[in-house]
Amino acid sequence: MTNPIFILVEPQLAENIGAVARAMLNFGLDQLRLVSPRPLWPSDRAIQVAAGAETVLHHAPVARSLREAAADCQVVYAASARRRDLVKNIVTPRQAAAEWRELAAQNVKTAIVLGPERTGLVNDDVATADKVVMVPLNPEFSSLNLSQAAGILAYEWFQAGDAATPPTERSGDAPPAERRHLYSFLDRLEHELLQCGFLRNEHMRATMVNNLRALFARASLTDQELRSLHGVITELVTRRVGPRE
Amino acid sequence: MTNPIFILVEPQLAENIGAVARAMLNFGLDQLRLVSPRPLWPSDRAIQVAAGAETVLHHAPVARSLREAAADCQVVYAASARRRDLVKNIVTPRQAAAEWRELAAQNVKTAIVLGPERTGLVNDDVATADKVVMVPLNPEFSSLNLSQAAGILAYEWFQAGDAATPPTERSGDAPPAERRHLYSFLDRLEHELLQCGFLRNEHMRATMVNNLRALFARASLTDQELRSLHGVITELVTRRVGPRE
Repeated sequence: MTNPIFILVEPQLAENIGAVARAMLNFGLDQLRLVSPRPLWPSDRAIQVAAGAETVLHHAPVARSLREAAADCQVVYAASARRRDLVKNIVTPRQAAAEWRELAAQNVKTAIVLGPERTGLVNDDVATADKVVMVPLNPEFSSLNLSQAAGILAYEWFQAGDAATPPTERSGDAPPAERRHLYSFLDRLEHELLQCGFLRNEHMRATMVNNLRALFARASLTDQELRSLHGVITELVTRRVGPRE
Repeated sequence: MTNPIFILVEPQLAENIGAVARAMLNFGLDQLRLVSPRPLWPSDRAIQVAAGAETVLHHAPVARSLREAAADCQVVYAASARRRDLVKNIVTPRQAAAEWRELAAQNVKTAIVLGPERTGLVNDDVATADKVVMVPLNPEFSSLNLSQAAGILAYEWFQAGDAATPPTERSGDAPPAERRHLYSFLDRLEHELLQCGFLRNEHMRATMVNNLRALFARASLTDQELRSLHGVITELVTRRVGPRE
């Protein structure tokens, strides 16, 4: 499978190059190419910010032009934060990611091109791209950091794949207890509350009991948690009788 | 409508606080709270990195504990990069964003809590959250930068809303031309190619013509583009006869 390649055109800040490498690897992408980076290159600062993804930087070829960097790519997406006066298909990161997965499955080499921090890509570079990928942004504050843009594109790539199965709904080993364990806890709780007089108002009793049942039912308690709650009741009942030595 | 509030617990780097503010505002969120920030606060460096979103920083209250920062919030999501030994519902950013939209529509004050860069949230802080939101990550490189995490959560929030309507499929003003204009261009092209002898091989002619038709059809040409192509043909035909003065 051919994963997409990120091409940074004239990136200005070493921090951003490092942050792009880190975000790419977070989402399973490791092919980065640079066109005329402005910082001295290679850059210690970029490696520092990459925070463990420096292998992405070490393997990043440096080209003098986008044309050179993208020469062996078959499909090119230009990232842009604004509309251009060019007739060009525009896709969201989510739509693009679905396309990138299809292209990768067909072994088509795809490039995702991001421009310099201050200006974005020049129209000349956008014009030769197949499509434009545009992150929907707050129209009143649409200046998106370069590494944030790369991060969102890489994130969508990863979400569109099989590896990003949604997490199981619960962490921890324990599944919710069988309902009968919940019921017997509720029975005991109600019994103890009757004993201690908390449910003495017969008029309110049914409502109160149902509210307590609902509260504990909502929590999807595990067996361990039910045992803890039984312990809490035992302790409270015991102390009511009198503190132990 | 009550938009979610981001709470950063003991953030270590001013750059990251600024980058979080910027990413939040990119996606229409402006309520940030800080718990015991490590850098000297307020921070010029954070304002610099916020790059226009400094109003988010200026309005960010500073608390001494998460308990204090989240006191007026009604639902709390803890961001975590790893599973905890706690029984807790886990959701993806996309699932969480749908929930945040529903909560906002019901005017429920929701907090999204992110921990310090190096360690993430401590279990004590995760334990009192309603849910855990976890970004699916490359298991081999799961150290996600704080501002990237915040950016992805804010991005999903924005995508889940009405403002993030997908862009129209094409930028530029021009829609694709009516097909009859494409057909008349193709007719003319084929006529000229017959005239100049390019289609002289009768055996290959049909295939060649169809390939050319497919190529131009695929491009979804506008009227202006068709006029340009007519101009190109006129020019080429004229030059074939002999260069003009």
